[in-house]
Amino acid sequence: MDKLKQRILRDAKVLPGNIIKVGGFLNHMVDIGLMRDIGKEFAAIFGGQCPTKILTIEAAGIPIAAMTSLELDIPFVIAKKFDSIEYVNPSEDYSAHVTSHTKKTSHVIRVSKSFFTPDDRVLILDDFLAYGDAALALIEIVRQTQASLVGVGICVEKSFQKGAEQLESKGINLHSLVRVQSLEDGVITML
Amino acid sequence: MDKLKQRILRDAKVLPGNIIKVGGFLNHMVDIGLMRDIGKEFAAIFGGQCPTKILTIEAAGIPIAAMTSLELDIPFVIAKKFDSIEYVNPSEDYSAHVTSHTKKTSHVIRVSKSFFTPDDRVLILDDFLAYGDAALALIEIVRQTQASLVGVGICVEKSFQKGAEQLESKGINLHSLVRVQSLEDGVITML
Repeated sequence: MDKLKQRILRDAKVLPGNIIKVGGFLNHMVDIGLMRDIGKEFAAIFGGQCPTKILTIEAAGIPIAAMTSLELDIPFVIAKKFDSIEYVNPSEDYSAHVTSHTKKTSHVIRVSKSFFTPDDRVLILDDFLAYGDAALALIEIVRQTQASLVGVGICVEKSFQKGAEQLESKGINLHSLVRVQSLEDGVITML
Repeated sequence: MDKLKQRILRDAKVLPGNIIKVGGFLNHMVDIGLMRDIGKEFAAIFGGQCPTKILTIEAAGIPIAAMTSLELDIPFVIAKKFDSIEYVNPSEDYSAHVTSHTKKTSHVIRVSKSFFTPDDRVLILDDFLAYGDAALALIEIVRQTQASLVGVGICVEKSFQKGAEQLESKGINLHSLVRVQSLEDGVITML
């Protein structure tokens, strides 16, 4: 997606620890025109597979899910993050563990069982794919619902980390709008 | 807003501690048609005052901000929550303290200083107004930016708690789409 690629090259900053800072337009202050185009792009990529629900994770995935949901006219579900498994009710919730390599934290995500049926066709969306921890946890939640997984849509894939490889080795239908090959010396090189 | 009112009366659940559970359509699984209408309603209420930016707080405020932002064609800023003040950089961020009466937790919210100028006209949006803790913290952030505060838009006001009174006593331009007068005996009574 050229518009997102150009915007990243123009406005993103590279921070120590292979972090791409896109807070000024993607996940802290949101450029709604760009976000609308991202939603249209994901709708074009995945719409033909007739998803019935979008699943994302709070908080940065929400604007992406909202705009794609608007385009496809289907609901979106926000997996909530909790510090500890004690906030999950196993009789009411699906849950999975996530370890964030970037933030060096571990937490639990959950969604209510009432939001999914085995007939659902679920599209997972998120802002970044690095080591794939969040995506793998969301995939695990979809597995628990017994719904079908349509695919995983990502705005910015860090292709030099292990996430994309892991998802593809599992046969997941992954589409990343922008793929970053390297951040060496603070320079963003794209595939 | 009658559509939201009817949906709450039909689908919301009242939990102990005066909690209204709207997870099935407003803040956990999101009905995008309803959310679009909420965005249009806030745009109609506040659009005449020419806001230049929307400010909300993660995570439940994000879909509301996104849909209103789309309607008004202005960016929205997400105040991020942190457990501790140590994650805030005073030279780069505006910050404020929030105490959640519902969750019995205390945290810090922050936004980057680079997102606002004194010329901005800021509209604050959130899902619930109870004791007003989040709203007051967002108002404090707007004060620090030296921008103008256009008003505060809320989906569901619990009018029997102190938030609305506090905001109005400060002369804040508050608009709530739905006002709940009482949750006694688990029955939702609206104003």
